[in-house]
Amino acid sequence: MAKGLTSRKEDYSQWYNELVVKADLAEHSAVRGCMVIKPYGYAIWEKMQRVLDDMFKKTGHVNAYFPLFIPKSYLSKEAAHVEGFAKECAVVTHYRLKTAEDGKSVVVDPDAKLEEELIVRPTSETIIWNTYKNWIQSYRDLPILVNQWANVVRWEMRTRLFLRTAEFLWQEGHTAHATKNEAIEEAEKMLDVYAEFAQNYMAMPVIKGLKTENERFAGAEETYCIEALMQDGKALQAGTSHFLGQNFAKAFDVKFATKEGKQDYVWATSWGVSTRLMGALIMTHSDDNGLVLPPVLAPFQVVIVPIYKGEEQLNAINEVAFKLKEELESKGISVKYDNRDTHKPGWKFAEYELKGVPVRIAIGPRDLENNTIEIARRDTLEKEILHQDNLAVKVEHLLEQIQENLYQKALDFREENIHYADTYEEFKQILEEKGGFIYAHWDGTPETEEKIKEETKATIRCIPLDAKEEEGKCIYTGKPSKRRVIFAKAY
Amino acid sequence: MAKGLTSRKEDYSQWYNELVVKADLAEHSAVRGCMVIKPYGYAIWEKMQRVLDDMFKKTGHVNAYFPLFIPKSYLSKEAAHVEGFAKECAVVTHYRLKTAEDGKSVVVDPDAKLEEELIVRPTSETIIWNTYKNWIQSYRDLPILVNQWANVVRWEMRTRLFLRTAEFLWQEGHTAHATKNEAIEEAEKMLDVYAEFAQNYMAMPVIKGLKTENERFAGAEETYCIEALMQDGKALQAGTSHFLGQNFAKAFDVKFATKEGKQDYVWATSWGVSTRLMGALIMTHSDDNGLVLPPVLAPFQVVIVPIYKGEEQLNAINEVAFKLKEELESKGISVKYDNRDTHKPGWKFAEYELKGVPVRIAIGPRDLENNTIEIARRDTLEKEILHQDNLAVKVEHLLEQIQENLYQKALDFREENIHYADTYEEFKQILEEKGGFIYAHWDGTPETEEKIKEETKATIRCIPLDAKEEEGKCIYTGKPSKRRVIFAKAY
Repeated sequence: MAKGLTSRKEDYSQWYNELVVKADLAEHSAVRGCMVIKPYGYAIWEKMQRVLDDMFKKTGHVNAYFPLFIPKSYLSKEAAHVEGFAKECAVVTHYRLKTAEDGKSVVVDPDAKLEEELIVRPTSETIIWNTYKNWIQSYRDLPILVNQWANVVRWEMRTRLFLRTAEFLWQEGHTAHATKNEAIEEAEKMLDVYAEFAQNYMAMPVIKGLKTENERFAGAEETYCIEALMQDGKALQAGTSHFLGQNFAKAFDVKFATKEGKQDYVWATSWGVSTRLMGALIMTHSDDNGLVLPPVLAPFQVVIVPIYKGEEQLNAINEVAFKLKEELESKGISVKYDNRDTHKPGWKFAEYELKGVPVRIAIGPRDLENNTIEIARRDTLEKEILHQDNLAVKVEHLLEQIQENLYQKALDFREENIHYADTYEEFKQILEEKGGFIYAHWDGTPETEEKIKEETKATIRCIPLDAKEEEGKCIYTGKPSKRRVIFAKAY
Repeated sequence: MAKGLTSRKEDYSQWYNELVVKADLAEHSAVRGCMVIKPYGYAIWEKMQRVLDDMFKKTGHVNAYFPLFIPKSYLSKEAAHVEGFAKECAVVTHYRLKTAEDGKSVVVDPDAKLEEELIVRPTSETIIWNTYKNWIQSYRDLPILVNQWANVVRWEMRTRLFLRTAEFLWQEGHTAHATKNEAIEEAEKMLDVYAEFAQNYMAMPVIKGLKTENERFAGAEETYCIEALMQDGKALQAGTSHFLGQNFAKAFDVKFATKEGKQDYVWATSWGVSTRLMGALIMTHSDDNGLVLPPVLAPFQVVIVPIYKGEEQLNAINEVAFKLKEELESKGISVKYDNRDTHKPGWKFAEYELKGVPVRIAIGPRDLENNTIEIARRDTLEKEILHQDNLAVKVEHLLEQIQENLYQKALDFREENIHYADTYEEFKQILEEKGGFIYAHWDGTPETEEKIKEETKATIRCIPLDAKEEEGKCIYTGKPSKRRVIFAKAY
């Protein structure tokens, strides 16, 4: 167990909070609810961004940038949207400070009050659809397939690093289409992109589904989501893709001339993932020794540590290590060689274990004699002595194995924690004793969902897209149900 | 001349404003002073970001992210800094809205007033140095070489797309060092990075220099800058790198244990370039026909336009065009093949000329017979008929030529617009009649600089780093001077 790191069993929540800080991923800032993403954490986010951005571009999207501020009146243009979003926002009311009477500090200049307050964007549908109004006249202007990488602010009262912060980083796609079907296809396509990213890069299995009306995005006709299961048996919503119907087009009067020469409102989608994915990544794989990272998202995949006494040994090891580093890098593997003399090998071992570096290579004097190295994999903590010959190929293969193993391990965990409940008693017992995803029948009403939530804190995570038709009775009301939905306590 | 585009001679300022909008780069948003960066404009910015980011990483820097908000009291901790920055800022005073009495609109909830107002960052020195305080204990923690890509807000009253907007995008490097010399070296190194980027990627010659005290960054000991000359004879500051001394370390009490075991304040630099570079890029190369882009920053470098009658001809041209596209792409050249049937070739020619695509290839029926294509370069507007054989190599070469030609043309223009003035009369005459960079002697006082600015609107752009020692007399006061500085009217 890493020095000073609370174990998951002891206190899962505490383990997470400590791990984020100790692994140098992020920390709380002096501004309530806002985090500082530290270089090591940001390097992981950058890798995620790069992969996602490439996936968006391959599916025909382009990036743009819209203003940080939204005029207050825009928020109330879409009725459901304002209900869901207008409440906890950062509000800009003034545009100037002036020197205070003490001549040193500054105060808000009361003369510089804005006529209309500006809201720091909590999401950008309103400002973007107000802009699209000028971009769209005819079906020839459609589709618009735009994405934005941005910061957003939602004034959360209880915050946790990455999982829920007042300011966070995200991407938000906003697309405009000529037909309903095309918009639905887009929303589903982007859900698939998110699921593929979660599984193939984050090594995190997800269930694709639809949100119930209660959990739907404010202003959406339908919200698609991917749901992942964390090691404490709680669910985490990892990404959402919304079919917005014509709601925002109607709110901002965005019409287009169809091929047939008629006027119609434009169809819309929006979809996003955020730095919350960092929280999901951390909680999916990490252990009591620290962070565990899937190789494809690790800032560096291999660390080489020399074990030596005196400068002569170090020089000899340096020679081997630099050659090895170059070999690995020529295969596209990212490598850090840590030959700092300010820290001992033991300290370095602990440090890189805590930081989740997938593969550690140690080289000592005996290795020089035997033409060997010691290799350790972070996921299983197994060590092995290997010949230096052809090592790059072996490491390449090992990294692939680790990536697969992490996914398989997470998948096995999830499968073990999928339960079926047919009565409310059973449901509550599973929730209490095991947690996890609970497949149960539900009568389809928001009232029942709300009552179950009040009594158990479990919410419907989604109606799985692959749910099979099955006659049943709602665990709460006994009314008929046609398919099971997934309940869980959630982040 | 592009349809509807004002010529530079007619009204340079109007030409710029129209060009930015017509070339689909950016537009004004509904929020005063904030712009929407459109996909075509953002694609150029993304290319700039990618190149700069790689250059920062090659020089040892890592990215991180700090909060958007700065507590008001932080701004006044560094005395000079508050003078320069605290005035025109977006101020967040409340954190909640509530439904108005009409039941529809929203109003600011007076109960949700912040105890201390938050400022939307105009720059991040204060929040970052407040953070570094916790990161730095010993010389072992130094240097810190961090960069951040972010949005910032400065409440400008008169805004122009890219050149001066209330919100803009930028990068800001913030480094911490154990010694003064190391910090100065860093500030100079990053100035070199900016100059290299401007010259080798933007094809924009720049002069490296030091700002005078008047023009120095608020809180800096020394501000280095790169200055470019626009086609209307006005200067544009394209990037700055500041040696901050120990000012911010003192303001935020950031000390470290030296190797010798003493306590000392940390030395700092900061450096940044912004979406303002987009304005510089546009104004350096573009002409009365529209945008002209250096190939290495163009969203696509080659556009292929088919010229055809009927589907049969199009099919035959498609075959050649797709093959050609693939060949070009295999050489790393980005290509758009525009075979839309909704627009005529003439329209497409004008469109891509306006958008500054470096190379246009047209393929018509006669080209099919003769195994040729027509190639046109945007910089010189020259056309040529070329054989299809080995075309990719020729295009690759042509793109390099265009890149070089644009730089040479801009350099020639700048050299022609460098003037020397030895009297104030001469100075004013050159400024009135020719504009450009005026090398003149100055007595070194802020007062003289201020007076010249008041009387002529010209400012000292920089004291060039390569200025040679030369005895002279200040053009304004006649007092002795040791070297010439560069005056110009500026953006």
